[in-house]
Amino acid sequence: MVQSILLLSSKINILVISGFSRLTILGTGHVAWAIGMALKQAGHSVVQVFGRDNARTMELANALDAQPVVNLTDLAPDSDVFILAVSDDAIFDLVNSLPAVRGMVVHTSASVSMEVIKERFSGCGVLYPLQTLSRNRKSNLSDVPFFVEAADENQLLQLTRFASTITSHVIHADSDTRRKYHLAAIFACNFVNHMYSIASDYLTAQGLRPELLGPLMEETAAKAIELGAAASQTGPALRDDSQTMQRHIEMLRYLPEYQNLYALMSTLIQQFHNKPDDQL
Amino acid sequence: MVQSILLLSSKINILVISGFSRLTILGTGHVAWAIGMALKQAGHSVVQVFGRDNARTMELANALDAQPVVNLTDLAPDSDVFILAVSDDAIFDLVNSLPAVRGMVVHTSASVSMEVIKERFSGCGVLYPLQTLSRNRKSNLSDVPFFVEAADENQLLQLTRFASTITSHVIHADSDTRRKYHLAAIFACNFVNHMYSIASDYLTAQGLRPELLGPLMEETAAKAIELGAAASQTGPALRDDSQTMQRHIEMLRYLPEYQNLYALMSTLIQQFHNKPDDQL
Repeated sequence: MVQSILLLSSKINILVISGFSRLTILGTGHVAWAIGMALKQAGHSVVQVFGRDNARTMELANALDAQPVVNLTDLAPDSDVFILAVSDDAIFDLVNSLPAVRGMVVHTSASVSMEVIKERFSGCGVLYPLQTLSRNRKSNLSDVPFFVEAADENQLLQLTRFASTITSHVIHADSDTRRKYHLAAIFACNFVNHMYSIASDYLTAQGLRPELLGPLMEETAAKAIELGAAASQTGPALRDDSQTMQRHIEMLRYLPEYQNLYALMSTLIQQFHNKPDDQL
Repeated sequence: MVQSILLLSSKINILVISGFSRLTILGTGHVAWAIGMALKQAGHSVVQVFGRDNARTMELANALDAQPVVNLTDLAPDSDVFILAVSDDAIFDLVNSLPAVRGMVVHTSASVSMEVIKERFSGCGVLYPLQTLSRNRKSNLSDVPFFVEAADENQLLQLTRFASTITSHVIHADSDTRRKYHLAAIFACNFVNHMYSIASDYLTAQGLRPELLGPLMEETAAKAIELGAAASQTGPALRDDSQTMQRHIEMLRYLPEYQNLYALMSTLIQQFHNKPDDQL
């Protein structure tokens, strides 16, 4: 289901592939910004930016040297690719409100199936970056895995070639596989980030300095990437240090939600690493 | 309770502080390795390494150009500092088995009180690095916060000066404060790492590639450090995307522990960000 770009590279020579030269971005949120800026930096020409909100559309269009468009009827139909960088909920309505266009229509969602576009446009695909994007942080997408899907092999090659201009890491995956990576990413990003929030919240409430955790957060990620997460685990749950765990539970007595989470995570760590409670 | 090294710097000029020139490390685990290597790199002379296990003691002693010692009676009593880098459980017994020494005796534990040493040695302190250390990964401690505590102000200055040779980040904190940072670190490191383990475990079981999560893990940490964790949060729980969350819960039906954790973390994220279920 996942195949490397290298598997297809031999075919690139025998197919005539037209690169995308005119691009349209639909959406003005953090994904639209991140992908738009990456495309601009790669030398692409974004001709139009569409959004419902005038000011936000103008802002992104200006940043991309593109024309702002707030009515779908004003979309130039001759773009090579229309990138729907809008919320999951908005994709279906947007697809069905688009005028007839000849270019490929792609969305950037982890969860939405490509079929939502395919029912109306035979030229269709998905371009999903496996990354957490926020508008107030500049993102470097050059090593971010982009999950690419398209309606047929020729389109897949076109989209792969296009994605390769902004990342070194293009992955071919169907909608089902893409969703599995997204689910894993919820644990490795959203839930991880909430653990940071809890740690920070606790230290702040104690009048202490959450920023002191920075080197630890960086090293925890770097070590897990190098050694694998299982081999990287440390701490009182792993070494079954029940005295320290008990003291921490006691320290959290005024924060029952964090107290319960501490107990649950410690149990999960011990089960995962196969350390029963009575084994030191 | 936490004061910056700068607050004390004016006093350094009026006190005569002898630097530590002869060091002894007790312990051969990952903390002993990390601190020992950092001390060697900083130009210190580690004269002896003590450990119970012959081979492991020899290995670390060789790496530090030090003498290996497996009997406490062979400890040179004239070291300036004795660093007890052993497990929490072992500190009490080790302190009470040490021969009379004139140098300062310090431990490296987050959880153990300094009083455990002070009851026997008036020259005592704590030198705790807020970092996850594993033996098979080389650690750079130069920006790691070291929490330092000592029996009196003169010793605190000595220990601060010593710690400053291996890190730019020395924090004065008593044992109670140090424990609070450690508790926060359990969330920001151990529980985070277990989230990585779950994500990796899930992808592996699906025949997919956990290593693709690497850039996401790095960026999640970097973004939270830059913007703060609360402002960095993204994902279906934050935006109350109940359709995606429901599909994920369904995808985890064969893994009830991960399913429960998914539901719990999503609820905690929504409560933390004050988004009731009926608010989109």
